[in-house]
Amino acid sequence: MTTQADRPADAAGTTWVLSFAEGHRGMADLLGGKGANLAEMTRLGLPVPPGFTITTQACRAYLAEGHEPEGLAEQVEEHLRRVEDAAGRRFGDPADPLLVSVRSGARFSMPGMMDTILNVGLTDETLPGLARRAGERFAQDCYRRLVQMYGRTVLGVDGQLFEDVLDQARQRAGVRDDQGLDAAALADVATRFRELLREHAGEDLPQDPREQLTRAVRAVFESWNSPRAVLYRSREGIDPNLGTAVNVVAMVFGNTGERSGSGVCFTRDPASGHRGAYGDYLTNAQGEDVVAGIRQPVPLARLADIDPPAYEQLMGHLATLENHYRDLCDVEFTIEDGRLWILQTRVGKRTAGAAFRIATQLVDEGVIDLDEALRRVTGEQLTQLLHPRFAADQERRVLARGLPASPGAAVGEAVLDSERAVEWAAQGRTVVLVRPETSPEDLPGMVAAVAVVTARGGLTSHAAVVARGMGRTCVAGAEGLQVDLERRVVTGPGGQVREGDVISVDGTAGVVSIGELDVEASVVAAALEDPGAAPDDELVEAVVRLLAHADLRRTTGVLTNADTPEDARRARRLGAEGIGLCRTEHMLLGERRHIVEDIVLDRDRETAFSRMHDLHREEFRGVLEAMDGLPVVVRLLDPPLHEFLPDLTELSVHAALEEAAGRADEDTARLLAGVRRWHETNPMLGLRGVRLVAVVPELYAVQARALAHATADLLEKGFDPRPELMVPLVAEAAELAAARRVIEQAVRAVADERGTTVSIPVGSMIELPRAALTAGEVARHADFFSFGTNDLTQTTWGLSRDDAEASFMPAYRESGLVPTDPFDSIDVDGVGRLVRIAVAEGRATRPDLGLGICGEHGGDPASVRFFAEVGLDYVSCSPPRVPAARLEAGRAVVLAEGASEADTR
Amino acid sequence: MTTQADRPADAAGTTWVLSFAEGHRGMADLLGGKGANLAEMTRLGLPVPPGFTITTQACRAYLAEGHEPEGLAEQVEEHLRRVEDAAGRRFGDPADPLLVSVRSGARFSMPGMMDTILNVGLTDETLPGLARRAGERFAQDCYRRLVQMYGRTVLGVDGQLFEDVLDQARQRAGVRDDQGLDAAALADVATRFRELLREHAGEDLPQDPREQLTRAVRAVFESWNSPRAVLYRSREGIDPNLGTAVNVVAMVFGNTGERSGSGVCFTRDPASGHRGAYGDYLTNAQGEDVVAGIRQPVPLARLADIDPPAYEQLMGHLATLENHYRDLCDVEFTIEDGRLWILQTRVGKRTAGAAFRIATQLVDEGVIDLDEALRRVTGEQLTQLLHPRFAADQERRVLARGLPASPGAAVGEAVLDSERAVEWAAQGRTVVLVRPETSPEDLPGMVAAVAVVTARGGLTSHAAVVARGMGRTCVAGAEGLQVDLERRVVTGPGGQVREGDVISVDGTAGVVSIGELDVEASVVAAALEDPGAAPDDELVEAVVRLLAHADLRRTTGVLTNADTPEDARRARRLGAEGIGLCRTEHMLLGERRHIVEDIVLDRDRETAFSRMHDLHREEFRGVLEAMDGLPVVVRLLDPPLHEFLPDLTELSVHAALEEAAGRADEDTARLLAGVRRWHETNPMLGLRGVRLVAVVPELYAVQARALAHATADLLEKGFDPRPELMVPLVAEAAELAAARRVIEQAVRAVADERGTTVSIPVGSMIELPRAALTAGEVARHADFFSFGTNDLTQTTWGLSRDDAEASFMPAYRESGLVPTDPFDSIDVDGVGRLVRIAVAEGRATRPDLGLGICGEHGGDPASVRFFAEVGLDYVSCSPPRVPAARLEAGRAVVLAEGASEADTR
Repeated sequence: MTTQADRPADAAGTTWVLSFAEGHRGMADLLGGKGANLAEMTRLGLPVPPGFTITTQACRAYLAEGHEPEGLAEQVEEHLRRVEDAAGRRFGDPADPLLVSVRSGARFSMPGMMDTILNVGLTDETLPGLARRAGERFAQDCYRRLVQMYGRTVLGVDGQLFEDVLDQARQRAGVRDDQGLDAAALADVATRFRELLREHAGEDLPQDPREQLTRAVRAVFESWNSPRAVLYRSREGIDPNLGTAVNVVAMVFGNTGERSGSGVCFTRDPASGHRGAYGDYLTNAQGEDVVAGIRQPVPLARLADIDPPAYEQLMGHLATLENHYRDLCDVEFTIEDGRLWILQTRVGKRTAGAAFRIATQLVDEGVIDLDEALRRVTGEQLTQLLHPRFAADQERRVLARGLPASPGAAVGEAVLDSERAVEWAAQGRTVVLVRPETSPEDLPGMVAAVAVVTARGGLTSHAAVVARGMGRTCVAGAEGLQVDLERRVVTGPGGQVREGDVISVDGTAGVVSIGELDVEASVVAAALEDPGAAPDDELVEAVVRLLAHADLRRTTGVLTNADTPEDARRARRLGAEGIGLCRTEHMLLGERRHIVEDIVLDRDRETAFSRMHDLHREEFRGVLEAMDGLPVVVRLLDPPLHEFLPDLTELSVHAALEEAAGRADEDTARLLAGVRRWHETNPMLGLRGVRLVAVVPELYAVQARALAHATADLLEKGFDPRPELMVPLVAEAAELAAARRVIEQAVRAVADERGTTVSIPVGSMIELPRAALTAGEVARHADFFSFGTNDLTQTTWGLSRDDAEASFMPAYRESGLVPTDPFDSIDVDGVGRLVRIAVAEGRATRPDLGLGICGEHGGDPASVRFFAEVGLDYVSCSPPRVPAARLEAGRAVVLAEGASEADTR
Repeated sequence: MTTQADRPADAAGTTWVLSFAEGHRGMADLLGGKGANLAEMTRLGLPVPPGFTITTQACRAYLAEGHEPEGLAEQVEEHLRRVEDAAGRRFGDPADPLLVSVRSGARFSMPGMMDTILNVGLTDETLPGLARRAGERFAQDCYRRLVQMYGRTVLGVDGQLFEDVLDQARQRAGVRDDQGLDAAALADVATRFRELLREHAGEDLPQDPREQLTRAVRAVFESWNSPRAVLYRSREGIDPNLGTAVNVVAMVFGNTGERSGSGVCFTRDPASGHRGAYGDYLTNAQGEDVVAGIRQPVPLARLADIDPPAYEQLMGHLATLENHYRDLCDVEFTIEDGRLWILQTRVGKRTAGAAFRIATQLVDEGVIDLDEALRRVTGEQLTQLLHPRFAADQERRVLARGLPASPGAAVGEAVLDSERAVEWAAQGRTVVLVRPETSPEDLPGMVAAVAVVTARGGLTSHAAVVARGMGRTCVAGAEGLQVDLERRVVTGPGGQVREGDVISVDGTAGVVSIGELDVEASVVAAALEDPGAAPDDELVEAVVRLLAHADLRRTTGVLTNADTPEDARRARRLGAEGIGLCRTEHMLLGERRHIVEDIVLDRDRETAFSRMHDLHREEFRGVLEAMDGLPVVVRLLDPPLHEFLPDLTELSVHAALEEAAGRADEDTARLLAGVRRWHETNPMLGLRGVRLVAVVPELYAVQARALAHATADLLEKGFDPRPELMVPLVAEAAELAAARRVIEQAVRAVADERGTTVSIPVGSMIELPRAALTAGEVARHADFFSFGTNDLTQTTWGLSRDDAEASFMPAYRESGLVPTDPFDSIDVDGVGRLVRIAVAEGRATRPDLGLGICGEHGGDPASVRFFAEVGLDYVSCSPPRVPAARLEAGRAVVLAEGASEADTR
């Protein structure tokens, strides 16, 4: 990011500080969220204490240059003078000092940032003035608070040391809370606090009020790069170059007596959305005391009795704010000696359910339209609503924590291998498959289980991807989990379970617990899957209404990734408009892998191909029938064939042991030779996808023939099948052309044989950088492109997702080296750029080229918006993610319109 | 390629046929090489028989549509009429028939194409007319030749069948050659030939002369896609869409008696370049008889006695041609009854040595300038001249043939593992390392050996890359070679050798022979390495002169890839202007790999790092000293660390066997656990390069510190070291920034410690698509970019070079699916596009950004031209390839100028 701060030459002429009256809500980039809202309220005429904001640009300049930019000090001084004028007090005036608070305020709120220093401006010299105005005890309390906050946040003294001093003071005075400490005791505390500063930081609280202010501002700037803030930003994908603003505000006090107090409130209930103030109030207290919960606040409604005029005013301001922001607002206020001050407001956080409810309520109230309502809910929130969850307020015995790989809540007996999972499930038992990691061999077990837990692997590991695809709850990469397959026990940081013990898997939070937790089903999911049986529920209605609106607005189709008729039917109920990815390798697992083994090891290939053909034909027929009238895009075999063979190392050990025991076995030797021959150092970059045609030319012909026959079977029965075929791992147009010839020949042969017309468009996966870079050529042989963004991300980054997750990726995330995991959300700059190139050049060659995406990113809200923006015809995602994808595709349209509206405002 | 042929609507209006008088030499794309030269000679007024050329465009249209394009038949008829007029005979005229030859003529000459059908137009009806004109026996001989050629090339009848019939006829007649067969015997042969046609192709020679012509032309068109032609094109990188032209020429006969004859000659000696005709002549013969060598031709000079006027004329024509073409010409001619006809000319092929000699001779003769001379030699020819070779005319007992992976000729005892190679070499024995394939573990053996042979792996396999880098002769992927490590024998298609037997390895031809062959050293190499000792040799002078001119003209620097002082010195002697790639992993092989093992397995890391530091410091010092005053770009550790550990499968087998034998071993178990932990499914996409910083943060700091110390050591001694550091496998700018921080901190610490100024620019490898796609960002943290085109090719194509070579790549090459191997020569459309993007966007961010390339492509002539064109500052290649790179960098400039001259002509 190149900002003005990068050009120090301009510094002197730059505006680094704005008073509240000079800003507005639209300036959050420059003023931070808090500053922008303070300015907005000032503009609305609400009673905000006088103050000013030091911009994020000043912060960036400070961090870049290591010192305050030229002109900042002068501008702060100038604005301080204006605050003095407005408040009628002077900063540092011994007679009646102005005190200010210094608070950070970034674009996005962020834990780890320095929060607040109150009472800046208080010194030994100004203390008597404050005491004269508001009493000795109050002044001493203010002073010790300043020393404490300054010591902790500016000088980095351990906060516990201060608490210990307070504890001792309370014990000495024999009181339970600070309220019981008198002026002398508090003065003593402040003195001891200042000793702590000298002892641990080597310096005292500055006795120059201006130095206090300068150091506090600097501390806010520097807290931008505190480790916690850096980590939080990297996790949340917040740009590390934004910087924070600093708000300097005249102090108002809610703790000057019974006519004072502080409160926090919402303009409507953040759980249900019902209009009407909702919050807490505490007499004779500062804002932090309300939140800290040391004393019990009263419900906000009681303020009507305590201070009727203030309550009346507050209600008026809340109404003003909600009408102005057209949304639920979250407000902090203070009453000082009967005078109401609004200290902060922001659009309030809410639960996923409330987001949908409030959005539709505001529509009904005529405050916003349906487009705006759609902007205010997210696919992620919808996904949360679709999964069952564990009832709140249950005690959990956590076995281990891992990655929330596939959301949901499931309970079952732990089982440690696929075979046993299948066996127990067949006995009617409910099982959770727990594995070190999973491979395609584990698929039957994953199907049989209600949830999957792995010790290794990331959010895009085999377990995570497959579990999400099947809608199985999954926790992947559970930290510290050890699966002992010999002793049949699972050990985690929180305890141990034996195989057969019941565990509870929270795939939404990424937690595995010992024992059985209570599960609540999702009414929303039930309603979406079976609209006829939908209950008369406000939340269900809100979701259905906003989904319908999203469908109306979206220009991007939503297809699903499905390999079985069951998945296809479920996805269709959830709104899928076809299948964008039907993986033929999933039809060749379990016992059927021997078919591929026979082909690979060249054992009676003809029979193997014929079995493969018959199996495919039947499966294809089922899927096409389930999606009758809608497109079904079948992907030809993609994985390296040796994935269907035993593991080289395991087999080598087995063979060596057999031989050592004098039981050398001809079959094993032959198998081992075959496995060795087909072994690859980097299978991801090896003999896969379209490359298989060069080595096993019959393969794609057999698969195409099976699809053509399945189509003809359905046509004869009066169905409307719409099959398409896509060729994986194309790097060069000639590869696609060669595969296309094989496919077309096979399809034509079936059509001739059956005497019917079978039309199967052929497309190319775009999952290698070269395919994207030469898309203009590839498009000459393709009816459509389907972006395989998983593989495209792997090759563009040179990154094997599983290997990376096992080694350096966690460290990268911790240190913020990758702002967002490119496997979770599309990497717009790298992978996204290739997608744009391929879209533009593919369509230049062939304007009617179909364009879709079938990687995991098809279910990621942010990615869906990107794909809609670049103009793809459809996204394809796993069945459970279909509703969220529909919602996000609609949001992509209204957000783009909203953005352009904002631009022209 | 979109050609006019793709738009059939235009067909009728297209010119499909040009007479010789209508074309010229610059039209080779349309007329093919042969047709363009025939046209050129016609324009020059040389005696070319009348004829015309059917264009390559007609061929493309025919192949695209499956039939002759509209208008072609009419145009052929029209041009045939003109030939009739010029020859004074009519096609199909029974009284005096015009006969024509039909010959293919593509842009590039190509084996597998249908070559020639002579005497087209001869039928039962026209035969008597020809007999009346030239005699019965002659006519019958012409007829049987037509039937034979037509049967073989148009109808695809096995040629051997015709030879058998001729054999029988000769036996019956009791004569040794066809000359002895009389008219009746030849008539009988023709009859039997026609029976063969009917029997094997189901049809006779057409008795309509026009049908003969149409079918012959069609056969030429179709031969474009003959398997041999397809294979040849794919091997030579010739565009499969060019198509061939067809030349139809009035027959002239060199076999009508003693006043007739045929010859082939050169305008100067193709081996020495000396001016003066040079060739063979055969009386009473057709051209094919001269080449076939059945009768012994006489030296051309004898023609001066045989036919003085014809000889005089010919000498005049040869002079005309050489002056016109300004190059050595290769000419075919025929004398028919005392009249001289020139049938064909082309710029003549020559040996690598002759290319250099002739180019400089022509400069001395004032025919061409030095720029043109530079255009006429290639880096590949120069490379040939630099290697020793086996003396010609030796009998070879070929053990196996493979890929010419690293040129040269070497003889030594076969040895089957690295350890023994080192051991035997230490005893003073000369060894050739023969391995199934090589890994970094084999490096000591490769160093000890004079040549390397592998059974598996391609031109960019480990063995090939390392051998080229070290200048070791290498044959990789020897077909059918089996290395039996237990019985210590090597078996190939041509025999068997035991370990210790002598073999001869021809790395230039890719042949491994049994026994010792005589080797000739290269005088050119000796002269370049030691200019003072250069012999007074015309070839050496020519090479030195053209290299000097290339240095003068080139704008691209030539650096070398070198890891040792010896390699650095050698490269410097060969003209390298620095080191573009110094691989630190090569300093950690052999026994030293235990240092990395200690780090990986966390055994006394501190000592390991300290040993690594000291080793690096000494090696860096040596390399910097050898390149004093020139840049030395050191690459930080790149390979996955587990490459320094034992192989997982081997170790697993070992551990299992030990355990089964009750000898379970704590150390092995620990090692195995470590190897398992660091094992990766796709190491190429795993924990490598800059990613290591996240897991082993000390690594780059230690390497940077060692380089800084080495630099300071040399500075103190008064040297001028110019170190640079480059960071491998960057995908994201933040990675580079993080590594740069580590490096700068380490360098600063050394500078402070030593009290000296050490400046080490830091650059980024661009070897992942994402780095290229985000080059603008990466450049913010980089002083220079170095393109690693090996890895960039692997990820752009999603192709592991070793795995691909072992599985589908050979099939791809066979079928022409990849026009040129992207690992041999830069893939301009895909990888090259990324290079262009990175160059443009990197320089946009930072105009002074250094740009180089250090992949294997840095030594490939075609790639060097590409890199020069896109504006890289330098290429870096292995020492032996430095002269060729210098030459090609110069050629890039003059070829670009030549091209623009041609454009404006």
